Amino acid sequence: MRSVLVLNGPNLNLLGHRSPEFYGRQTLAQIENSCRTWSSEVGLEIEFLQSNSESTMIDAIQRAMSIHSGIIINAAAYTSTSIALRDAIEASKLPCIEIHLSNIYAREKWRSDSYLSAVSVGVICGFRETSYRLAILAMADLLES
Amino acid sequence: MRSVLVLNGPNLNLLGHRSPEFYGRQTLAQIENSCRTWSSEVGLEIEFLQSNSESTMIDAIQRAMSIHSGIIINAAAYTSTSIALRDAIEASKLPCIEIHLSNIYAREKWRSDSYLSAVSVGVICGFRETSYRLAILAMADLLES
Amino acid sequence: MRSVLVLNGPNLNLLGHRSPEFYGRQTLAQIENSCRTWSSEVGLEIEFLQSNSESTMIDAIQRAMSIHSGIIINAAAYTSTSIALRDAIEASKLPCIEIHLSNIYAREKWRSDSYLSAVSVGVICGFRETSYRLAILAMADLLES
Amino acid sequence: MRSVLVLNGPNLNLLGHRSPEFYGRQTLAQIENSCRTWSSEVGLEIEFLQSNSESTMIDAIQRAMSIHSGIIINAAAYTSTSIALRDAIEASKLPCIEIHLSNIYAREKWRSDSYLSAVSVGVICGFRETSYRLAILAMADLLES
Amino acid sequence: MRSVLVLNGPNLNLLGHRSPEFYGRQTLAQIENSCRTWSSEVGLEIEFLQSNSESTMIDAIQRAMSIHSGIIINAAAYTSTSIALRDAIEASKLPCIEIHLSNIYAREKWRSDSYLSAVSVGVICGFRETSYRLAILAMADLLES
Amino acid sequence: MRSVLVLNGPNLNLLGHRSPEFYGRQTLAQIENSCRTWSSEVGLEIEFLQSNSESTMIDAIQRAMSIHSGIIINAAAYTSTSIALRDAIEASKLPCIEIHLSNIYAREKWRSDSYLSAVSVGVICGFRETSYRLAILAMADLLES
Amino acid sequence: MRSVLVLNGPNLNLLGHRSPEFYGRQTLAQIENSCRTWSSEVGLEIEFLQSNSESTMIDAIQRAMSIHSGIIINAAAYTSTSIALRDAIEASKLPCIEIHLSNIYAREKWRSDSYLSAVSVGVICGFRETSYRLAILAMADLLES
Amino acid sequence: MRSVLVLNGPNLNLLGHRSPEFYGRQTLAQIENSCRTWSSEVGLEIEFLQSNSESTMIDAIQRAMSIHSGIIINAAAYTSTSIALRDAIEASKLPCIEIHLSNIYAREKWRSDSYLSAVSVGVICGFRETSYRLAILAMADLLES
Amino acid sequence: MRSVLVLNGPNLNLLGHRSPEFYGRQTLAQIENSCRTWSSEVGLEIEFLQSNSESTMIDAIQRAMSIHSGIIINAAAYTSTSIALRDAIEASKLPCIEIHLSNIYAREKWRSDSYLSAVSVGVICGFRETSYRLAILAMADLLES
Amino acid sequence: MRSVLVLNGPNLNLLGHRSPEFYGRQTLAQIENSCRTWSSEVGLEIEFLQSNSESTMIDAIQRAMSIHSGIIINAAAYTSTSIALRDAIEASKLPCIEIHLSNIYAREKWRSDSYLSAVSVGVICGFRETSYRLAILAMADLLES
Amino acid sequence: MRSVLVLNGPNLNLLGHRSPEFYGRQTLAQIENSCRTWSSEVGLEIEFLQSNSESTMIDAIQRAMSIHSGIIINAAAYTSTSIALRDAIEASKLPCIEIHLSNIYAREKWRSDSYLSAVSVGVICGFRETSYRLAILAMADLLES
Amino acid sequence: MRSVLVLNGPNLNLLGHRSPEFYGRQTLAQIENSCRTWSSEVGLEIEFLQSNSESTMIDAIQRAMSIHSGIIINAAAYTSTSIALRDAIEASKLPCIEIHLSNIYAREKWRSDSYLSAVSVGVICGFRETSYRLAILAMADLLES
Repeated sequence: MRSVLVLNGPNLNLLGHRSPEFYGRQTLAQIENSCRTWSSEVGLEIEFLQSNSESTMIDAIQRAMSIHSGIIINAAAYTSTSIALRDAIEASKLPCIEIHLSNIYAREKWRSDSYLSAVSVGVICGFRETSYRLAILAMADLLES
Repeated sequence: MRSVLVLNGPNLNLLGHRSPEFYGRQTLAQIENSCRTWSSEVGLEIEFLQSNSESTMIDAIQRAMSIHSGIIINAAAYTSTSIALRDAIEASKLPCIEIHLSNIYAREKWRSDSYLSAVSVGVICGFRETSYRLAILAMADLLES
Repeated sequence: MRSVLVLNGPNLNLLGHRSPEFYGRQTLAQIENSCRTWSSEVGLEIEFLQSNSESTMIDAIQRAMSIHSGIIINAAAYTSTSIALRDAIEASKLPCIEIHLSNIYAREKWRSDSYLSAVSVGVICGFRETSYRLAILAMADLLES
Repeated sequence: MRSVLVLNGPNLNLLGHRSPEFYGRQTLAQIENSCRTWSSEVGLEIEFLQSNSESTMIDAIQRAMSIHSGIIINAAAYTSTSIALRDAIEASKLPCIEIHLSNIYAREKWRSDSYLSAVSVGVICGFRETSYRLAILAMADLLES
Repeated sequence: MRSVLVLNGPNLNLLGHRSPEFYGRQTLAQIENSCRTWSSEVGLEIEFLQSNSESTMIDAIQRAMSIHSGIIINAAAYTSTSIALRDAIEASKLPCIEIHLSNIYAREKWRSDSYLSAVSVGVICGFRETSYRLAILAMADLLES
Repeated sequence: MRSVLVLNGPNLNLLGHRSPEFYGRQTLAQIENSCRTWSSEVGLEIEFLQSNSESTMIDAIQRAMSIHSGIIINAAAYTSTSIALRDAIEASKLPCIEIHLSNIYAREKWRSDSYLSAVSVGVICGFRETSYRLAILAMADLLES
Repeated sequence: MRSVLVLNGPNLNLLGHRSPEFYGRQTLAQIENSCRTWSSEVGLEIEFLQSNSESTMIDAIQRAMSIHSGIIINAAAYTSTSIALRDAIEASKLPCIEIHLSNIYAREKWRSDSYLSAVSVGVICGFRETSYRLAILAMADLLES
Repeated sequence: MRSVLVLNGPNLNLLGHRSPEFYGRQTLAQIENSCRTWSSEVGLEIEFLQSNSESTMIDAIQRAMSIHSGIIINAAAYTSTSIALRDAIEASKLPCIEIHLSNIYAREKWRSDSYLSAVSVGVICGFRETSYRLAILAMADLLES
Repeated sequence: MRSVLVLNGPNLNLLGHRSPEFYGRQTLAQIENSCRTWSSEVGLEIEFLQSNSESTMIDAIQRAMSIHSGIIINAAAYTSTSIALRDAIEASKLPCIEIHLSNIYAREKWRSDSYLSAVSVGVICGFRETSYRLAILAMADLLES
Repeated sequence: MRSVLVLNGPNLNLLGHRSPEFYGRQTLAQIENSCRTWSSEVGLEIEFLQSNSESTMIDAIQRAMSIHSGIIINAAAYTSTSIALRDAIEASKLPCIEIHLSNIYAREKWRSDSYLSAVSVGVICGFRETSYRLAILAMADLLES
Repeated sequence: MRSVLVLNGPNLNLLGHRSPEFYGRQTLAQIENSCRTWSSEVGLEIEFLQSNSESTMIDAIQRAMSIHSGIIINAAAYTSTSIALRDAIEASKLPCIEIHLSNIYAREKWRSDSYLSAVSVGVICGFRETSYRLAILAMADLLES
Repeated sequence: MRSVLVLNGPNLNLLGHRSPEFYGRQTLAQIENSCRTWSSEVGLEIEFLQSNSESTMIDAIQRAMSIHSGIIINAAAYTSTSIALRDAIEASKLPCIEIHLSNIYAREKWRSDSYLSAVSVGVICGFRETSYRLAILAMADLLES
């Protein structure tokens, strides 16, 4: 059974409380539960991780190289500032899907200047927790082909 | 039963032949068939349309206001040049999902300067024909909530 | 009796419904009626046209060369994207007045980057349907001098 | 009877002599006379003022708050450089119409970077003295609604 | 005998009347005649087309894929605004030559920001109707090698 | 006893009425009173001045050179447009503190492009009338050291 | 008794040694002591923290949500690079004051491109250790109103 | 005998005291004296004026139209910010020479973005008081030819 | 018999060896031979010159003023960096045609920032040695009219 | 015996596997061994460190102040994003040499926008592991002089 | 007796023929003669040189270090493109005056982007041959002080 | 025995005298001597050349193709302005190392905009004459592998 790293960036541990007009009302724990259900439906195992630390995220991606078959990343604020995450994703050679809860194109300009998009297979944003579900489906699809 | 307009922009009628490294090897007719299957699975009807003409696309969006409950749009080259399509989408007040077959963030810079993203609920790109499938699921999800 | 082409661009057929805070509550048909009254008051005939198609608008301007004495244009979204409309206006050698219902300078930056202003005699914007009335008066004034 | 401040900025006292290809051949006194006629035709009184001084213009706008129902401003060169005039207009809460004799969009780029447009109801430019006439009509219209 | 599509964009039907200092005094019909002579001299057949419509031009390029061996395009105003034409040319895989009657590098800056140049074999501009003649020679040369 | 010039720029005489969400509800007279109290508490005398005129402000700064030991300036709109005020401050060689009632970094981009900051000792903004109080304390502190 | 988090960013542990022309000669321990005095004078308790780690700072802000009534942040180099800190501050919904020892507007351009200013109540910079004192006063003032 | 207006802008009344490394050690009164000598040597009379007020400077230029044969202007800080001065110079139709005491090209970038240069005959800068002497010679030369 | 200067810039003496995917496989000597044939066919004599030196090229253009009737220039790298060549061409008042072997619009951005285009009659690029042939034809055509 | 900190940034622990066309085929352990040899040859001791964490790197630089005589830093992705590292280097007052395995000037534009270069003595890049060797030689040379 | 190098750049040998509206009608030989007269009047000897070659100009400046007391340079087109000339001037440590015949600020933008201004004492432009005369006077003045 | 061209650009013949804070106190002759020693130590012969002329440098690179195995270039001011040198290096297909005496990243912005870096193997700068030594070592290393 294939497994996927679902990696969540800074401040996502606050979900459910923070700006619900952008991020919805579900907590990260609820999203994790849903992700487990969605992924088992398509025959995937997941490791679900959140960190406020850029280096913890880099470490997780590097570790994923020998454990996982793909990465789903919601890098939150690091999306626009971390070349180090980009390099980690690229070096891992794993298929990666970039996701966002909110539609980053309808917010501040710099939120959509992503260092990660160009090294990802694709991008999904704007569907709140459903963004995770779509990414799991897309990853299952990618890993089959 | 709710219905959705799946609107395809210029040169997408050439799919299957054009740059398969970006767009995959399926023809638009094959994608249309898949879309019909995927949408019926989630209880949606679709109108599937392709046009090389900006105004035909605007007309379709305007007509959708009285027929459809949502729009899935792959505006291709018009994504980056048509403010008129943006205005039509915004005026329609229908939920809209922007999709792309290829990962537009990994190509020429101007391909990812989208006029449509900010008036869409969300964006999905990079998964070839699966982008359509994910959009149909996301639309079903949106229309239920 | 002199006649003038009053040319309306994409999505203006939706007037009355679309974002009334910008565009007011009158339909395009109501505006056309008002225009007929206002123009006859100053001794002008008008041809009143709306199209979502850039090329239909270009054709109308080219045809105007042998029929009309001036052009009043509300090019809507094409204002900021159509060099072809600019070339048509310039080639027509007819006096042209650019109008807008809303104050385009108080909205998104790119709405006020007009290709048409530099080939027009003048610009009127922000007065909703009254923008048309002022343009008709200004045109009458121009054609007399 | 409602009254309106018609405020004219730097160098407009030279009208009639300066670059007639842009500004026409009427002196400011002649324009003032015409304005008095046009405004009385629509039931408005006007205060007509010209100053080369930014602060005199700010003072006039501040004084207008307790005397006038609207402002018509041809701020000339201060259009592109005076944030203080913008703040005064905004603070006055009076409806303001920005006008220009020449078509500022067909001249040097910086002439059309207006600080005033975004705090005005609308903009009229390019019709020489007729710009004043149209603004008086538009103001009468605004004050009625 | 090989054939070539000679495709002309918006407002070129006005040639002979419009700004002769840029475009010369020949009508498009005269240029078409010359093109027929020049192409038969080098053993090529031509289809000569003008349209004000972007989508008609895209359709023509798509149709050319199965009929013609090359494309000569004077896209006029669409040169700087149409990514859709670029995509059509690229998708056609036909050798394409971009031409202009006037020297676009000696005019407004945006006239020389061409979306088409990078997907064309080469560019010829500034020689009025002779630009067509040079393009026909170059195309004959290309198709031989 | 040391004295300080507290200099206020254009439109600040309207305080209490203008956009209270940015500027609070105190009038400039009330702020002047508070400033007198606050400064006497820290052993400073103040001259409190407001002007809509850039040159009156320059004159005040020049005069301050022989009277005052420091300058507290809320230059309002002139902050972003007046190099002349900057030159006057720099030439005065007096320690200067730039203040603003509102948080200029959370408003239009050009409001925070200050010509004055680089020739000031420091900047305080966003605390409404308390900005004045903090500046008086900071100035007392500066003059002691 | 209300408490406030005083959060200090990277390299501030070197204070007293590093570039005294910008930062003064006090060590961070001395500043902490002063802060304890100043805050007790205005009835506030403080938690005083320094970290070179962006994530430790984010964690501190998140923890502050349930402990403190406000945040005073000298984010040093992270001011210009950390969107994650901005998001943490915004999500915390606590009033935040951004401070700097040096006048960041009189140094390299990028030092004053702050991601934090727009989500802070106000900004104080340039007064060395007195910047902390002013911020404590301003915070006391904010928490009272 | 021909006369020339020598017009000096804001803060130049401080000469002799302000930044002597840029402006030299002569007071404006000393420079005026020298200018009287230099101009009488080449048969010119001068009116020598300094003002901190933009509008006083505009008034002086307008008045010069009927009195003087040329203008020598050291607009100081208004060089880079006053379009109104530019318009006044242009409207006056008098030959104008722009001068500066310091070499504005070796200082802050914005000091050399002059609105006045393009409407002046020429520019002289960097020679301290000698800049005035050279301008007087050049003006004498201009008025003779 | 009219003569034309065919002037070649830096590194073109390496043709045949350098990047054949851009420049083709012909040596400059072979191109010179072809040019002699092509020009004699249209009744022109040519002087064919190559230099790595900007000043030698300027000298050649200056000398051409009294010998030749036109200039065909492939300035290679100097196209984008030499204002001096532009000035020489403009001063010569000879008709000039700018050519390039490769399609400079499909390469690095700065290769197509040409200082020469705006002072040339036209531009031809992308057809390898055929670019020279087309230029000779165009020049013959120009000199006849 | 003098010692030097050789500090390696994010993802460099993956060397030997990641993009060998840029980074070569040696692992970081192999490079460390070589560095020990090279440094002992020139009489230097080294501390060799790698971290994915920006703050760990800052801590290492701060600690180096009391242990080492110089710093050789390959900051990898943090080169372009970390002002905090720049501040740490500058505050340390140790001579620093910036190195890169790959030629960062021949890759993405943002890879060569280094915050570190301006506070380093010099930069060496493009020679793979030899970059380390050259830096050790240069450091030995620096410490001798 | 002190001597000065008067150095003239590319295409200035064409003076008298080239664009007299910018450069006047005097030949360079006539200007040289005038310069000899003007310089002897103020007790200076001159070496007068023109070259189309950047390196010849650099050589002349280097040679000037041991012969001359100052440099007057009209670098023509090299003004905007030659950092090497700038470096030569700076390295020479001689006082340098930059001159231009035409007003470069009233022409193409890039003509006034001078690499030389910042390493010159001052700039004089726009007075045709009189620019040389003013520079000689200014140099005499500089060398005396 | 392999040989390498060590090519030095404009004004480097002045070394030892010019800005020693940037370039050190050694003359070019001394550096040449050191280079001969350093290169013989690693088994390389060198040709050491300096020129102020861009074309002489291009000629040297072209000649190097048949004589030398590599190029070490200190192009000085031509680094930022010469595309022709870049083309010559690229066309030569020889491994090239770009060096600078000073740290160009700590000086004016345009000094580090190098046209040469992207066609070089690597870059070394900031170590004064040691930059040459490191380049010789690096070249020896490159030629061995």
